[in-house]
Amino acid sequence: MKIGIIGSGVVAQTLGNKLIGLGHDLILGTRDPDKLDDKKMFGATLREWTSKTGGRGKVATFKEAAARGELLINATSGEVSLEALKLASADTVGSKVLIDVANELDFSKGRPPGVLASQERCLAEKLQAAFPNLKVVKSLNTIGAPVMVDPKALAGGDHTVFVSGNDAQAKATVTALLKSFGWTDVLDLGDLSTARGPEMYMALWLRLWAATGSGQLNIKVVR
Amino acid sequence: MKIGIIGSGVVAQTLGNKLIGLGHDLILGTRDPDKLDDKKMFGATLREWTSKTGGRGKVATFKEAAARGELLINATSGEVSLEALKLASADTVGSKVLIDVANELDFSKGRPPGVLASQERCLAEKLQAAFPNLKVVKSLNTIGAPVMVDPKALAGGDHTVFVSGNDAQAKATVTALLKSFGWTDVLDLGDLSTARGPEMYMALWLRLWAATGSGQLNIKVVR
Repeated sequence: MKIGIIGSGVVAQTLGNKLIGLGHDLILGTRDPDKLDDKKMFGATLREWTSKTGGRGKVATFKEAAARGELLINATSGEVSLEALKLASADTVGSKVLIDVANELDFSKGRPPGVLASQERCLAEKLQAAFPNLKVVKSLNTIGAPVMVDPKALAGGDHTVFVSGNDAQAKATVTALLKSFGWTDVLDLGDLSTARGPEMYMALWLRLWAATGSGQLNIKVVR
Repeated sequence: MKIGIIGSGVVAQTLGNKLIGLGHDLILGTRDPDKLDDKKMFGATLREWTSKTGGRGKVATFKEAAARGELLINATSGEVSLEALKLASADTVGSKVLIDVANELDFSKGRPPGVLASQERCLAEKLQAAFPNLKVVKSLNTIGAPVMVDPKALAGGDHTVFVSGNDAQAKATVTALLKSFGWTDVLDLGDLSTARGPEMYMALWLRLWAATGSGQLNIKVVR
């Protein structure tokens, strides 16, 4: 499958590596693809990243990534996701699936960052409202990048990932992709309004990270 | 131990039953202890409840419960917790531990209710600020009442409960009480500001309940 990632930070790079490894065609969209040597928070520069993929990881504009990908992933920082998807002209790309893995965080008051999601504010719903042509599926935002793409490295994969979205076929596509990553417990929470749950949960995840000293963690829904 | 519960709904009743079973002296505080026959949402009337405890479950005013309990539990609805603790004159009872198990929910727009917790709004911090004499420990708010008091009935108890609070000794007291309920994985998140995590998580818990069709669930922190 041809996959376009909107975003080029560590989450985008990690997902990109995994998808390339699984044999997908991957286009990583960035604001200014000429800036290959800019330092990324956590991630590699894009020149280092693309070089490590043996040139299979392609870097393009947001717009090219959105136009060429058959399936899209929003891996920008949640605070700028709406702007990035506008720059990507996501309204012109037809009814593609968009996996939204982002969280809106507020770093203005130090760490841990504030989590801006609330019962009044849900990024996934905001993106769906702005781009009704897309089939937005919220997923993977509850997990750090290394665990996203290698769930089996943590407790043999015995933990849970969520999907929320209005389109059953889109959720089935995303679920199949997650299973190809090694996920076994993919829990469908329901329509896109249920994304408020995993988005607000991020406030707990940040404390779990602080309390355990490692982002190599996840939750298992025991039922 | 003499334990005073502020609140008389199903959570208060369920915790009360468990504590009585463990041999504690239990006083359940209610707004108007003369109204023993009022219907409760989910729970029994207080006459039924106290009768089922063979009279060992005592019903009193908020104020008596707060004065007589050596350890206090806030099991009111989060929306009215501050008012209930004011009615209980909680500012006059000295430096007692208060376990806050409540969530602020908004039922005005149907179900699932909205979760009012956000990075700007944390019930436990609000209670601590209003009653600096108390040692507030947030715990058990992430779990339905039947699982709170019988963790081993779900997956043999292999799941997690959290404590947040500013006083280490108070957290140790609460942790010991939780262990007496059967909890084995009690995760200390840190100071009381970390209670934002479990409070905001409630938005996910409500969707897990809806998606799985049962409140008999919890999360295990896999790390």
